[in-house]
Amino acid sequence: METNEIEVYVRFSETDAAGHVNNTSYFLYLEEARTKYITQKFKQVNKKEKHSLNNFILASTKCDYISQAYAGDILKVKTTISHIGNKSFTFNHVITNANTDQVVIRASATLVSFNYSEQTSQPIPAEIRGYLERNLNT
Amino acid sequence: METNEIEVYVRFSETDAAGHVNNTSYFLYLEEARTKYITQKFKQVNKKEKHSLNNFILASTKCDYISQAYAGDILKVKTTISHIGNKSFTFNHVITNANTDQVVIRASATLVSFNYSEQTSQPIPAEIRGYLERNLNT
Amino acid sequence: METNEIEVYVRFSETDAAGHVNNTSYFLYLEEARTKYITQKFKQVNKKEKHSLNNFILASTKCDYISQAYAGDILKVKTTISHIGNKSFTFNHVITNANTDQVVIRASATLVSFNYSEQTSQPIPAEIRGYLERNLNT
Amino acid sequence: METNEIEVYVRFSETDAAGHVNNTSYFLYLEEARTKYITQKFKQVNKKEKHSLNNFILASTKCDYISQAYAGDILKVKTTISHIGNKSFTFNHVITNANTDQVVIRASATLVSFNYSEQTSQPIPAEIRGYLERNLNT
Repeated sequence: METNEIEVYVRFSETDAAGHVNNTSYFLYLEEARTKYITQKFKQVNKKEKHSLNNFILASTKCDYISQAYAGDILKVKTTISHIGNKSFTFNHVITNANTDQVVIRASATLVSFNYSEQTSQPIPAEIRGYLERNLNT
Repeated sequence: METNEIEVYVRFSETDAAGHVNNTSYFLYLEEARTKYITQKFKQVNKKEKHSLNNFILASTKCDYISQAYAGDILKVKTTISHIGNKSFTFNHVITNANTDQVVIRASATLVSFNYSEQTSQPIPAEIRGYLERNLNT
Repeated sequence: METNEIEVYVRFSETDAAGHVNNTSYFLYLEEARTKYITQKFKQVNKKEKHSLNNFILASTKCDYISQAYAGDILKVKTTISHIGNKSFTFNHVITNANTDQVVIRASATLVSFNYSEQTSQPIPAEIRGYLERNLNT
Repeated sequence: METNEIEVYVRFSETDAAGHVNNTSYFLYLEEARTKYITQKFKQVNKKEKHSLNNFILASTKCDYISQAYAGDILKVKTTISHIGNKSFTFNHVITNANTDQVVIRASATLVSFNYSEQTSQPIPAEIRGYLERNLNT
């Protein structure tokens, strides 16, 4: 499995009375994917600055529902960098059924580099930017 | 309160360790707003066809995070019709803090008219379309 | 409505593929009931000590599932004090269907008075204890 | 890892503003553990009767909160059979931190054998009972 992919198990509690995964549950999977991506990858490139998830805040998220998923399914969440701005960058996410490879949802999430002590957005730190640029669309 | 507005109480369980409402929780509020909108309004105009939430499926959703909300807050979710297509229409949602009127998130959700017995999308039923057109952007 | 009762609307996201409210969702309602009870009532009796929910931590919770509830239902959560110890007390919760009065679940939750600065349990503050004793089983 | 153990990753969305895992989130992990236990083990012993999770309904659940868990933690959920009745049986669950082995919660869940076509409880099917008895407290 690629390092930018995670697998999630669909819990029964994440389904709804329509019999399938509730539309809100996919955002749980996407947050897990983003968190793991940032925790694992940004840590490698930015040890001095101790940049973590807490240095980026979610500005926007979007999800297109393509097909359905069900309790007990194993889903694969693939996460790539799709856009890099000055103070923000965008993740592209595709969730597929791990058994059938059918696309379940397509999503994106834009994160803003944030300075908590000053409570303001800030340019993406140089080391993180370097990582993002080297990994754009891969 | 306008009939296209609902109020929600922010549960402690809907916050996260960053101290504010988790990004995924807003979608719970948006689904509640859509469900109530459709249940209450579509029922009035379409009694014969018994059109309900089950006749529309969520195709896409989007959320811009503007400011933060906290446990115990009362939020107001305002829902309007922002676009009408042949087989789909779009809700616009704005969530504000009921005490301060500060905008918390702006969101949209596109729903597709769906024929469950044939498992295919279908034109929006005439009576629902009439309702949507009379209420566009209001 | 009694002041120790709250009403909750069952969200579609809180149901599961069995068609009814998921077993885990009832705990969301119970936490909301406890939080509101403590926020509203303890605040009245203990203004000096600024005692809030944060001064009590959940030690144990229990739920008996009696009947089912469904999306769109309005549920009533009634909360009473059922036991008072030295450092802890117990809430009794009954959730009923607001339309039919049918009992949906019976639950309890034991909370421990906690001193965060010393990270240890402590006797229930006198004013809170007085309130609890005056309201036992009512 | 024992076959009656699962590991779960603590999502950021499962924490709350107190900084730790919300009390309601543990029930998500317990349901996942029960579901996997039943799906994997009962299927092996009861192929003819096609007994699944749907043939058992949750009657009661209980959780004692021992220590805290945090976003990103890996938790181990161990599930054993602790009691067998005529129409019901009880799971015992212990959740530990996978890195430190510290106990986080202790819980139990009682499930009742249910006949959906007749909407009534029923004796546990013989093959399932045999399995339960062979695995009591192991």
